[in-house]
This record gives sequence, structure tokens and C-alpha cells, in this order.
Amino acid sequence: MQTLQVDLGTRSYPIYIGRGLLDDGALLARHIVGRQVAIVSNETVAPLYLQRLSAALADFKQTHIVLPDGEAHKNWETLQLIFDGLLQARHDRRTTVIALGGGVIGDMAGFAAACYQRGVNFIQVPTTLLSQVDSSVGGKTGINHPLGKNMIGAFYQPQAVLIDTASLATLPARELSAGLAEVIKYGLICDEPFLGWLETNIDALRQLDDAALSEAIERSCAAKARVVGADERESGIRATLNLGHTFGHAIETHMGYGVWLHGEAVGAGTVMALEMSRRLGWIAEAERDRGIRLLRRAGLPVVPPQEMTPEHFLEHMAVDKKVLDGQLRLVLLQRLGEAVVTADYPREALQATLTTDYAGLVDSLGDA
Amino acid sequence: MQTLQVDLGTRSYPIYIGRGLLDDGALLARHIVGRQVAIVSNETVAPLYLQRLSAALADFKQTHIVLPDGEAHKNWETLQLIFDGLLQARHDRRTTVIALGGGVIGDMAGFAAACYQRGVNFIQVPTTLLSQVDSSVGGKTGINHPLGKNMIGAFYQPQAVLIDTASLATLPARELSAGLAEVIKYGLICDEPFLGWLETNIDALRQLDDAALSEAIERSCAAKARVVGADERESGIRATLNLGHTFGHAIETHMGYGVWLHGEAVGAGTVMALEMSRRLGWIAEAERDRGIRLLRRAGLPVVPPQEMTPEHFLEHMAVDKKVLDGQLRLVLLQRLGEAVVTADYPREALQATLTTDYAGLVDSLGDA
Repeated sequence: MQTLQVDLGTRSYPIYIGRGLLDDGALLARHIVGRQVAIVSNETVAPLYLQRLSAALADFKQTHIVLPDGEAHKNWETLQLIFDGLLQARHDRRTTVIALGGGVIGDMAGFAAACYQRGVNFIQVPTTLLSQVDSSVGGKTGINHPLGKNMIGAFYQPQAVLIDTASLATLPARELSAGLAEVIKYGLICDEPFLGWLETNIDALRQLDDAALSEAIERSCAAKARVVGADERESGIRATLNLGHTFGHAIETHMGYGVWLHGEAVGAGTVMALEMSRRLGWIAEAERDRGIRLLRRAGLPVVPPQEMTPEHFLEHMAVDKKVLDGQLRLVLLQRLGEAVVTADYPREALQATLTTDYAGLVDSLGDA
Repeated sequence: MQTLQVDLGTRSYPIYIGRGLLDDGALLARHIVGRQVAIVSNETVAPLYLQRLSAALADFKQTHIVLPDGEAHKNWETLQLIFDGLLQARHDRRTTVIALGGGVIGDMAGFAAACYQRGVNFIQVPTTLLSQVDSSVGGKTGINHPLGKNMIGAFYQPQAVLIDTASLATLPARELSAGLAEVIKYGLICDEPFLGWLETNIDALRQLDDAALSEAIERSCAAKARVVGADERESGIRATLNLGHTFGHAIETHMGYGVWLHGEAVGAGTVMALEMSRRLGWIAEAERDRGIRLLRRAGLPVVPPQEMTPEHFLEHMAVDKKVLDGQLRLVLLQRLGEAVVTADYPREALQATLTTDYAGLVDSLGDA
């Protein structure tokens, strides 16, 4: 087992990474203060892992709350099911909410924990690659609003993150690829050598090689913990973790939550951020193409939806959380391995980015 | 103008108290960082004060969000109207939400500010006595759940609290009395001399004497600021501010939100807390009666609803936020001017408190 630490003063917490941690009740119990726990999962993950986690926590009074699966359910109505379950079973302020599932479950269970009786403890047990490398770490919780993704939420840190790498064995290939979008992101924004490692290991990762997965998760979590420790509430550098996300959120919102997986939208969105960085002369065409090739090899879509016009993008991006005083800030690359957040770019560069023929661009890369 | 300070480190903020502060745009502007503000009010208060506040903030881009009035609307559906208004007008993270109204508006606008884009600034402009002396100070925000009052919320501090005492001129007498329940509370829990002052000035307060109101508000806010500064997240002494509230919340939830005003339920609930403290031998009968007489002179109900059985109370109190590991903690008085929070009482004392004939008890006090 590897242990990383997210350093946030009194809100610091460990990230445990290892095979079979789901069954380690003693490890979990260290982070539970009361006698009650509520395990929040979904209809896909619960049949696979809920019984095992429940058995590991046999000493506690448990409530199980199983939600419908998918980003389309990351809304108030579903969140209310968590509150209903907690109140019906009379969970008090000393309860611990445990999120067992992917990013949607972690975001919703964490937000419910942040709001229930104005805040109770929670623990993240992420079971998808995306949630293990990104969303379970750093305390961003929330739900979607019909007008914008993650618009309602809280910064609320867990007591611990417990990553059982064995849980990836049951992950659909499409979801694995979606998780790789966030893994690749860390290479692009702050760890150029990691890009090289990923180019070597991308096939092993897609074949669920355990050593490769563990290393990718550790390096990703270490990067995330570093950035979050430096800027918990995203007043600066943390925003660089959103590379590709402003374009990606526009795709998710426009297509309908859940039609494109979050990681898929981030994949195509990252291609757009690479293209815009190239148009500004910050990265070379070969660097852009290096990024696109890696995303493609990860099994990700690298072309935004045909049906989306530049106007669609601009409309959705206008409510992005990185808009300040009416200025849309974008995460762009100054070079591979170094991202910046800036509103200081010519509007024409953005317009050109939105009108680029991505299908043609990707075709021209060939299969290499 | 008087200025008090709530000391919470980086989250410290001032409470301004004075006549006509609603028109002091410069004072407000000191606490606004961006160019956008959203004023959240209700259908009763908006016609009285929204235009004046809006004029004072003429330099800012404004959105006005007017909600239905009353505790019955302190729920998710109404909260959603705030998010809708913020998103439709494209408020970004630098926006400031301004709560103009009573406790329900402050709680909801504050919770919306806590959750919108994971947290934006907000300012409290309380217009009722109850919100001026209690709910606008200290950062408790939230909404009700059908199974329990204030069950969903956040600790989220405002940038400033601006109390225009002149706004009480339009407050219905019933609401003024409801506010006095919380004023009297401070005397009972931590300021015995204030009780004597209130006995002298209660009629002046009910007649809206400005000097008396200003002093009552200042002393109440000073007490609240002291307690909140010592225990922001209610791990200890802050819970004493809930004298009468556990019984009172049961009344509010059972009768249907809004049927009894919050302060009215606290009035009757405080009588129950006084009675239980006497049964434990902590206060004398004469002290209990002194408290009841003052609450009655404030125009408050001092007898719980006839239709509520002990079982009703126990059922609603079982989900109180002061329940820990199944133990219901109650705020009781060790003497007038000193409250404790304790789960260490004989169950029979609680049972006897719930079966007391309050109508008979109050009748026996006579009119003196």
C-alpha cells in the first residue's frame, strides 16, 4: 500500500493506494469517529462492491443508499435521496458518509456530507480510474444545474481517500479511457516526463496492467495533492487542473449530461486547448500533435461533436466558473508540461479554435 | 452608527448598526469586490426596501431575486429560484449576494452564496428584529427538510452585516415579538443583568422606541459575536444559543413550517427549557416564573400547542442536530444567565417536562 498526503493544515488527509483495500475495515475505521456510517453508491457499483465494503465495516451501524447511475442523475432530485436516507435512519452530526463509486457518486455524496446538518465527515472510496486520479482528491463536490455543470457545490475535504486498484478490473473500457484523459492532463500541465512514461505505457494501462495502473494513479494523485495543497479554493494555480474542461463542460452541457462521459469531453476539449495554444504560438504543431496522438491512443474522442457550432461553445462557456468580471479565462499550455490560466488572448484566436476542422486535423496525423 | 466585530480570523467581519444604513451605498461597497450584485428579498420586504437598496448600489450591475415570503418556502424549490436567477444573469465567482429580509431570506441567500460556484461573497441586510439580533450573525445558513428544520445547510460567514434599525418601523407586532424571544434568550443564557434591563424596557421595545431597540440589538449582537467567535462550528458553547430551540423546532416541524413563527416556537420552547431546569433543581420556581413572565410580556406564546403529545415531541427531537450517538443533548439553565448543553439528565425529567400542564402553570402566574 502507498500512502500520499494532501497537506491542508487541519484539513489534511491521506490517500491510500493498493490492491484489496476495500476489505480493510481497520484502515477505514481509523477515519470514522461515530458509530454510524452511510454508504452511498449506485446501481452499477453496489452489486459489485457494496457487500464487501459493508462486511469490512460490520462494527458500525450502516445505512446503504443506492442511487441511479450516471451524470444525468447528478442533480438535486438524486441528492435529496441521500438526505432522505440519512434523516430516515436518524444519522446525527457524528455520522460518516462513505462514497463508493465514480466521480458522480463522490461529488454528490461529498456535497451531501458538506450540507447535512451543516457538515459531517466523509470518506472517498473511488472505484473508477477518473475518480481515483482526479475527482476524489481535493474536496470539490457538487451537482449540476440545467444551465451549467458543477454550478452548485462546496469545497469540502474528505477524511481519507481509499483507492482499491483491484476495483478497476470491472471497469468498462470506455470508462477507463475517460479516466486516462485526466491522467494525461497531469503530464500536459505540470509533468512533461510523465507524458513520455504514458507514451510508453498507454497500452499496458488499457490492458489493466496492475503495476502500470498503480504508478499512473500514484503520479496523478501526487500531482493533484501538490496543486490542491498550494491552492485549495482555486484562487490561482488549481485552475490549471481544468485544462480542456471549459471546452469539455460546454460539450457535456450541450449534448446532455451523460451522453459524452466527462473524461471523453475533456479529451476533445484538451485537443481544442492544444490547438489554441498552438495558434498563440506557445506550443509547436508537433507538440500539439504529440498530445492529440496520446489522447487518441488512450481511446478518447479527439474531435468535438459535429453538431456544435462556435456559438454553442461560446454560450455555454459564458457561465464557466472561470469567468471573472465577464472575462472568460482559459487554461492553455505555454509548453508541454506547463499550463497557465489567462484571459489575455486575442478573441480571434478563440474564434479560430472554435472553427477549426478537427476531423481534418486528426485525419492528417495518420495512424502513427 | 455602532460597529461590532465578529472575530473569526480570516473570516472576521463587521456588524454595522444604525438608522438609515440601507441608503449607505459607500458602506456596502466597501464589502463588494466584483461589479455584480444579486439582491435576494421576498414579496413582503421588496416593495418596502428593495428600491432604496438598489439606488444605493447604482454603481453595480444588479439582479433582483424576489422570493415568496415565509418559513414554508425555506426549501430547495425556492433556493433553486436563486440559482436560476444567478445563472440566467451570468453571475460569476466574484459576485456578491445580498440578503434583504428576515431570517428565512438570510438563511436561504447565505446558503445559495455558500453553494453557488462553490462559494461567493455575501452580505446580510436583515430587516426583522429576529434576523438582526440572531440569524444574520454567525454564518448559519440552510434550508428545511420535510423531516427536520435546518437539516441542510452550511456554516458560511458573510462579508458584513448591515442593520438598519429604521426598518423595524414596518415590522408587524407579531414578528417583533418573535424577535424578542431571541433577545430574551441572550439574557437567560449569558447575561443576567440584561434580563433586568429587558424587564424595565420591554414595553418601550414593543412600542418601537428607537433607543431601546438599538441597545437591545447591540447587546444581543455583542453576545452572539462573542459566542460565535469562541466556537464557530458549534462544537461546544455555541449550542447554548439554541435554548428553547430543540422543543421549538419540534413545534415548528409538527405544526407545519410557518404556522408558528420561529420566535414564537422558541418562546414556548424556552418555557419548556425553564420548566425542565427547575425540575432538575437547577433554577428555582421563582426564576422559572420570572422568565415566563418576561416572555409573556414580550407578546409570545408561553404554552406549547395543545395538540402536541410527548410522543410528537420525542419523535421530532430525535432528529435534532444536537443528537450525538443517539443521545439527545438539551440546552438547560444552571441559573438565570448561565446555560449548559447536556445529555446527562434523567429521562423522567424530560418526560415530566413534556407532560406538564403549561396552560395551568401560566394561569397560576396571574397577570403580575
